[in-house]
Amino acid sequence: MQAENRIGYQTIEYKTRPWIMASACAVGPREGQGPLGDCFDLVAQDAAFGQDSYEQAEAALLREACRLCLAKANIGEKGVQAMVGGDLLNQIMPSALAARELKFPFLGLYGACSTMSEGLITGGMMCDGGYASPVLCTASSHYATAERQYRYPLEYGNQRSPASQWTVTGGGAVLLSLPEALPGTPMARLARGCIGRVVDLGVTDNNNMGAAMAPAAAATLCAYMDDTGDTPEQFDRIITGDLGMVGSDLLLAWCEKMGHPLPRGCMMDCGLTIYDPSQDSHAGGSGCGCSATVLSAYILPRIQRGEWKRVLFMATGALLSPTTTQQGESIPGVAHAVIIEGVGAC
Amino acid sequence: MQAENRIGYQTIEYKTRPWIMASACAVGPREGQGPLGDCFDLVAQDAAFGQDSYEQAEAALLREACRLCLAKANIGEKGVQAMVGGDLLNQIMPSALAARELKFPFLGLYGACSTMSEGLITGGMMCDGGYASPVLCTASSHYATAERQYRYPLEYGNQRSPASQWTVTGGGAVLLSLPEALPGTPMARLARGCIGRVVDLGVTDNNNMGAAMAPAAAATLCAYMDDTGDTPEQFDRIITGDLGMVGSDLLLAWCEKMGHPLPRGCMMDCGLTIYDPSQDSHAGGSGCGCSATVLSAYILPRIQRGEWKRVLFMATGALLSPTTTQQGESIPGVAHAVIIEGVGAC
Repeated sequence: MQAENRIGYQTIEYKTRPWIMASACAVGPREGQGPLGDCFDLVAQDAAFGQDSYEQAEAALLREACRLCLAKANIGEKGVQAMVGGDLLNQIMPSALAARELKFPFLGLYGACSTMSEGLITGGMMCDGGYASPVLCTASSHYATAERQYRYPLEYGNQRSPASQWTVTGGGAVLLSLPEALPGTPMARLARGCIGRVVDLGVTDNNNMGAAMAPAAAATLCAYMDDTGDTPEQFDRIITGDLGMVGSDLLLAWCEKMGHPLPRGCMMDCGLTIYDPSQDSHAGGSGCGCSATVLSAYILPRIQRGEWKRVLFMATGALLSPTTTQQGESIPGVAHAVIIEGVGAC
Repeated sequence: MQAENRIGYQTIEYKTRPWIMASACAVGPREGQGPLGDCFDLVAQDAAFGQDSYEQAEAALLREACRLCLAKANIGEKGVQAMVGGDLLNQIMPSALAARELKFPFLGLYGACSTMSEGLITGGMMCDGGYASPVLCTASSHYATAERQYRYPLEYGNQRSPASQWTVTGGGAVLLSLPEALPGTPMARLARGCIGRVVDLGVTDNNNMGAAMAPAAAATLCAYMDDTGDTPEQFDRIITGDLGMVGSDLLLAWCEKMGHPLPRGCMMDCGLTIYDPSQDSHAGGSGCGCSATVLSAYILPRIQRGEWKRVLFMATGALLSPTTTQQGESIPGVAHAVIIEGVGAC
């Protein structure tokens, strides 16, 4: 027996093309003031979201995103057969706290900022393979929790370098189901996934995540094209998670070098979409919540409205550990991709 | 469409019953001196395993376990279509470093000490659903890296409490494939999985992981029995990951209270198996590497030899975050179970 839903070395095909029934997100005030402010389902009035700690705030934002998503799909909480997701924090604590309250069977993931697409790949296999339906795929991040853990206490007021990115405060949730398993029409369908490999070209600057992630993004994109024979022109958009200004340019350079030049016009980066340059976010937004909230609030609605028919969504992760960075280790990167299509597409 | 391979609320069925082709593990000197010392594939002479840091040592032990596993199955490194795994460290760094060298498509998991069974559940779906075969499922832990991260610097020489457990130094790898996809006969087969829910009854003592995990273990075990109608008597062993002395007693008490009394004679805990009481490990061994190495070195070989026909293997995780514990949060637990059968079983 061979793996019949495998194409090439890294790509998988979802035969049933699972339905994306609903998505929702909850963000912080800074994200609400950005260009996508009107698109988010919930904008918190302050980054603590009424909680005693920023860690609890992140968990609460994620929980609200999940509840809003379930409400949109009009299903009770008992109806979800699995929750798969993660976040940036040690021991993925916000996800665990959200899962504790939601009480769904839970598979915890860690893929740093690539979590949203890692979750969609995993959730897609669970649906398509008949192991769980519906499945809730989640990811979150929070500026204050990420700074505390990865960099400096906020109280230091340290100066940020030009290549640094701003961690998005927000949680996103996407509900997948088998086709026609739930009432209603889907927003979009999941066609394929491409599982990334860990790539590390030796970047050690933990204020330059874009440079650490770009080689992994290029590797996954080129692997997908090699596996399937698809070309960039077959997508309305090729969307990266949070490469930011530095990483987005590097991705174009790497892909050209690897024989898969990308037309600049079809590229989009969630990290370059969520904030306005006037918001002083330097190289762009980042964090699991960046691609998760932009997917929910901006990308899926455009596919639902028929403006985009076929999109490659690839969240990118820097597997940065403060411990090993302090020991001199470089920053491994990973990127996972999914192909999302409109309901009318064949 | 409904999820056809789902039984009840938490249990999934693997129709092809994926083959466990090989397993391997590499451990530290303390584990080598324990009762299973002769069963491990590789015993390091010292806990640093020739590396500059304990973090790098953990990654190296895991990598060696993977390489030994692939060698046993007699397949080249190019042949693996996915690696799924994780460990206890922040950003699952040892797993990421091992994946960086092995270069397989990689899905990172975080389930604390439940990782080995979370990986088998996920890898089992990937094989059975035809998305990847073979799949390498991995988990690791290291006493020195875990103490540094979760508790105190080793140099403090702090006194350990009676309920505390000793984190196992070791990495384990299990290779799954679709039936008859690889030459050779399998060690065992994967029949079912039961995805755990996050359960938290308010334990805040981070030196008593057994008490934090036991309610989650009971919940998963009872859910599996409810979902399938199976009884404990249908298993040669019901094997928990690292409940230790405290948690194992609590599991029996909880299951009795929940209407599923467990016969003490069929219970086994990897944390109570890996060390001898003379090794002064207090309540037993723990860590992702505990259940991973005992599965590889002791459980699977007994199934392969026909001594056990059907086993429920349930690794248990305490989703302990030092950050949120310091903020007063309790410790959520999770447990995932898989049913492993002998090749002759039907």
